[in-house]
Amino acid sequence: MNIDCTTSLIEIKSQHISLKVPHLSVKTHSNRPSLKPLRNVTRRKMKSKLVTKNKFYNPCNEVHTKTNGTTCGLREIMIGRCSHYQYIKNGFVQPNGSRAKNCTELYEAFESAVRYKSYCNMNMSTYGRYFELALGDLHVISRAMFWSGTYAIAHTYGSNGRNYVTLEDTLAAAMVNGLTWCGKENDTEGFDFVSCPYRCKDNQWADYAFWGLASKTFAQLAAGEVYVVLNGSQANGKSAFRNDSYFRSFELPNLRQNGTYRVTKVNILVLHSPDAEVVERCGQKSLLELERLVQNKGFDYACEDDPEELILIMCSEHWHARECQVARQVLRQTWNKKLYGISNSNRNLLSLVIFSLIFGFNFIF
Amino acid sequence: MNIDCTTSLIEIKSQHISLKVPHLSVKTHSNRPSLKPLRNVTRRKMKSKLVTKNKFYNPCNEVHTKTNGTTCGLREIMIGRCSHYQYIKNGFVQPNGSRAKNCTELYEAFESAVRYKSYCNMNMSTYGRYFELALGDLHVISRAMFWSGTYAIAHTYGSNGRNYVTLEDTLAAAMVNGLTWCGKENDTEGFDFVSCPYRCKDNQWADYAFWGLASKTFAQLAAGEVYVVLNGSQANGKSAFRNDSYFRSFELPNLRQNGTYRVTKVNILVLHSPDAEVVERCGQKSLLELERLVQNKGFDYACEDDPEELILIMCSEHWHARECQVARQVLRQTWNKKLYGISNSNRNLLSLVIFSLIFGFNFIF
Ligand SMILES: N=c1c2ncn3c2ncn1[C@@H]1O[C@H](COP(=O)(O)OP(=O)(O)OC[C@H]2O[C@@H]3[C@H](O)[C@@H]2O)[C@@H](O)[C@H]1O
Repeated sequence: MNIDCTTSLIEIKSQHISLKVPHLSVKTHSNRPSLKPLRNVTRRKMKSKLVTKNKFYNPCNEVHTKTNGTTCGLREIMIGRCSHYQYIKNGFVQPNGSRAKNCTELYEAFESAVRYKSYCNMNMSTYGRYFELALGDLHVISRAMFWSGTYAIAHTYGSNGRNYVTLEDTLAAAMVNGLTWCGKENDTEGFDFVSCPYRCKDNQWADYAFWGLASKTFAQLAAGEVYVVLNGSQANGKSAFRNDSYFRSFELPNLRQNGTYRVTKVNILVLHSPDAEVVERCGQKSLLELERLVQNKGFDYACEDDPEELILIMCSEHWHARECQVARQVLRQTWNKKLYGISNSNRNLLSLVIFSLIFGFNFIF
Repeated sequence: MNIDCTTSLIEIKSQHISLKVPHLSVKTHSNRPSLKPLRNVTRRKMKSKLVTKNKFYNPCNEVHTKTNGTTCGLREIMIGRCSHYQYIKNGFVQPNGSRAKNCTELYEAFESAVRYKSYCNMNMSTYGRYFELALGDLHVISRAMFWSGTYAIAHTYGSNGRNYVTLEDTLAAAMVNGLTWCGKENDTEGFDFVSCPYRCKDNQWADYAFWGLASKTFAQLAAGEVYVVLNGSQANGKSAFRNDSYFRSFELPNLRQNGTYRVTKVNILVLHSPDAEVVERCGQKSLLELERLVQNKGFDYACEDDPEELILIMCSEHWHARECQVARQVLRQTWNKKLYGISNSNRNLLSLVIFSLIFGFNFIF
């Protein structure tokens, strides 16, 4: 029996429209500075260059000129997001019926921590008032989801707080997610719109002032079962549970161990991208260490590799990946049957699967 | 041979974490008023009640009190979104390096069309200046994607303009997508925050003043091949290509037929949701009529039912649907092989498919 499955697939008389290759969820990480040990990072020379050229150069007068400085329109974007959050985003996180916050006041609490200040002078309490105003009325977060190396998929799956609540679903973080900012001393604007330091040589903590405190506050509010989405196919030998991750440094240590609203169980979801290698899975390497840490803190621990619903999301975003091809053909045949009720679609589906199993998946594409 | 596939599936020693059922893409349609024939819609009585109770009642002082009136924080949200659009959203739509727009001015052009005005007095040119300011520098849109009855999936697939550009990816529409507004004469605020008329008895056009002109302007800018995502499994006997859809009334008639930037081809993608009936497919009923209209206008026409990448997105959002189960199990087995390299996973996958084909899909769940 010699069936060429590629051609034996039922040819349906529906034109095939050549679609552009989609790049869903291009955003794979957030804008948090990474928690690397101090290194001398060569800062871009852009700043001095541009400023010397034209003292009044303001990159914010043009659109889509990506700079390395403070996001243009920071104030308007933050106040707008705060209003959106309060009046449109449904109340998954903020207590229902609570009094609306003054978004301008909230922005100003944030601004007063940064503007006209030297970026590298910040510390862990710099944004204290902002977090107090933004999150002070929030006492418990259920279905909290942490992520590390899995920004895009964790947020797709969390679905803006409908399924799971991520840090970015809280007001304090939603207002600045994806934005950049840094103050500038002795400057009219008080913000550096041209370039922000990537790292502070003399003060490592400055970099964590915002996202460190945000992560810590979020972790302290999580209650009951929490979920952690980790990347088991990190490139360059990175671990799924890294030493220098925000999750490890600011979240895990701050989970509530006591009281009515304590954390009871930590559920780890380890993902392995299609067409990427399996570097670690549940019960291996850094995940073993994570298990030990979780249990030492008195929480139940569970770990699952690639829950099916997450594989489906991964394949919907990488439908050209080799490992998604058999499922894709199965769906094609299932839908053909749904559309045309063709009886021999079963036989074709079967041949497809038999051949893919015998010869591996490569033959299909 | 009597294999019970459910139990013969390889049991991997990875704990199964019970995840909450996700509701991805709950938003299935946008907030535009629908183009239904005029009916007497019973307006909510909320307004008069509340206003009599307390003359100064302002629902915007509380969060998450869903009203039927103008979105609280309209000004801040619109100005914030405009800034976000210009400085953060990548330049898929706006010409690169063009001068940044004044978001306050843009908002004010919008506001002056509505505020202190009676909602039912609007007409097609009410928002003329706003659209001119917002879109005046935009001459051509490639990869334009229209949608009708498929809001959520078209936008997931379009991926914020990265793959395809929808109306909502343009500045004019992005600023108000999902918002509600209506003016109020002889009122201090000039907006009705309590209740907006659902429909204007004496002036049907008022309802289309914004989204009608928006859709028309967008269609006039589309060039080359355009894409249309239609719903072939509409409930209640609705057609995929409805008589009263914005697509039919404002978009199709305004596609450019001449010149360098004319539309060359209209690609129709007809989707059939998992677990929903196939009401129409390419070459049937209303789609035949669409084909005739498109060809009469001199455009090439193509129609495809359920492209695989869109089936994958549908199944990732409805992974519990019956028609997604075999693919889901195939992915499970593929990932098990990837994770554990288990040799008999092939055999199990095969039995699964054989049985699902013999007994239908129902037995699995
Ligand atoms: N931008 C909107 C829009 N925003 C909100 N709405 C919009 N309708 C059309 N459009 C435009 O018209 C087309 C879709 O409208 P329609 O064909 O009526 O679809 P449908 O999905 O049937 O329209 C969806 C509903 O969504 C609301 C309207 O209230 C409308 O009733 C899209 O291509 C889009 O460009």
